[in-house]
Amino acid sequence: MTILDGKKLKQEILDEVKSKIEKNNAKMKLAIIQVGNNEASNIYVGQKLKACEYVGIEGNLYKLDENVSQEELLTLIDKLNKDDEVYGIILQSPIRHDLDFDYCSNKILASKDIDGFTRDSVYGNYINDTDILPCTVKGIITLLDKYEINLDGTNVVIVGRGNIVGKPLMLAMLNKNATVTVAHSHTKNLVDVCKTADVLISAVGKKGLITADHVKDGAVVIDVGITRVDGKIYGDVDFDNVKDKVSYITPVPGGVGPLTVASIILQLYEMYERRNING
Amino acid sequence: MTILDGKKLKQEILDEVKSKIEKNNAKMKLAIIQVGNNEASNIYVGQKLKACEYVGIEGNLYKLDENVSQEELLTLIDKLNKDDEVYGIILQSPIRHDLDFDYCSNKILASKDIDGFTRDSVYGNYINDTDILPCTVKGIITLLDKYEINLDGTNVVIVGRGNIVGKPLMLAMLNKNATVTVAHSHTKNLVDVCKTADVLISAVGKKGLITADHVKDGAVVIDVGITRVDGKIYGDVDFDNVKDKVSYITPVPGGVGPLTVASIILQLYEMYERRNING
Repeated sequence: MTILDGKKLKQEILDEVKSKIEKNNAKMKLAIIQVGNNEASNIYVGQKLKACEYVGIEGNLYKLDENVSQEELLTLIDKLNKDDEVYGIILQSPIRHDLDFDYCSNKILASKDIDGFTRDSVYGNYINDTDILPCTVKGIITLLDKYEINLDGTNVVIVGRGNIVGKPLMLAMLNKNATVTVAHSHTKNLVDVCKTADVLISAVGKKGLITADHVKDGAVVIDVGITRVDGKIYGDVDFDNVKDKVSYITPVPGGVGPLTVASIILQLYEMYERRNING
Repeated sequence: MTILDGKKLKQEILDEVKSKIEKNNAKMKLAIIQVGNNEASNIYVGQKLKACEYVGIEGNLYKLDENVSQEELLTLIDKLNKDDEVYGIILQSPIRHDLDFDYCSNKILASKDIDGFTRDSVYGNYINDTDILPCTVKGIITLLDKYEINLDGTNVVIVGRGNIVGKPLMLAMLNKNATVTVAHSHTKNLVDVCKTADVLISAVGKKGLITADHVKDGAVVIDVGITRVDGKIYGDVDFDNVKDKVSYITPVPGGVGPLTVASIILQLYEMYERRNING
């Protein structure tokens, strides 16, 4: 059994981007828009800014007042879209409920949408014509690539059908020529479905959902779930229960999580390359 | 075993729309753009125009010269987008290879995209916020609804991952709360995958691909494949071989095929209702 070490891969990605940025004397900015002062958002934004600083990207936080109007928010997005020095824009979720997150985030130019959530990015993934993916999905693909786990012709089972992980992952896995199954809360026979998986990916957020019963001998298990209980973080997978059956497995924490931030940095640099080097 | 009779359902849909159009004295136009004189296109366009005439929709064919420029094509799309009497626009494929079909068809307004192929329509299906679907997908959903085949919690296996049927069908089936598997040319164990299906849908275009070995007892089998051999039309499913195992099955011809045209008419009328009655 091999642990898929996301923490280590994150460091490798950051170091590689850092060295490319130095070599090419690349200048780029990441703009993060945060509305209000959500505590979890503060942590995530802090992690992104720290990674930017490490690799030599200028990270700018636009922390808007909790009561900002949608018009002001859209004006800022428009300004950042037009700023050539800005290579990536993140609208940090959640935002205030009466603001339309979907509408606002779709105003971000596809060429600056490093979160991969806009309709142009979704369509690009759908027609298999983009490298920009939602960061968690990009992280999973990068991790599997790193460990040379070939997806072509394998049975991939994804548990969870959300817009952030499940659905874009389904499209990305199809684009990798996997046979893809998506299971979710309405699935009647989750154990049977999961047992068909060569690669089982759980993105639900339910502690201990996946046990040895769900896992075929020799399967690859990727745990995207995050549940916090008494200050401790748990994944969807009962790690100790399944670890002797699997060939590869991600730990929680230290698996997919760290790669989300690394993917933002990676995709930001890819956007820079596209515009300035390969473009 | 029950035959899913698409030909009969088509007639019912057309009659229902016809009577609604008469009742509401509804006036609407469908614009079909055809480039050149492709023989198969002539047949498909003819079927669409005939259905329009039957229900009382004004069908207008814009048959452009084979050598039309992309600029002229885009000018026409723009004009039709702005014409309030036009409720639906179809860019009939194929078009000349050096014209960019994807770019041009994406210029059609989402509110007139009755083929459901534009990025806005794809995104609507992705986030489960639209009734407008690619016509074949809409036809399959309508057919299953008609025969009261509930998809919630069932295992749906789709063979084929194209942008016209496989992928939009995958999203639509997820939106119906089915557990969805997509198989394709790289799938290694097609028989095993298909045998998990409560509802098996094949959209490949390979005569006799699906045999009794692929079908679980009591499964619903939907055949979207079309292969022409010596002037005869065949589906993907070996009908005689599987018919004694299934609970429901579509014939070819007379199954999904007729519903494609019926779905255009149905979606066109739904667009009319949205703009004039429910809007």
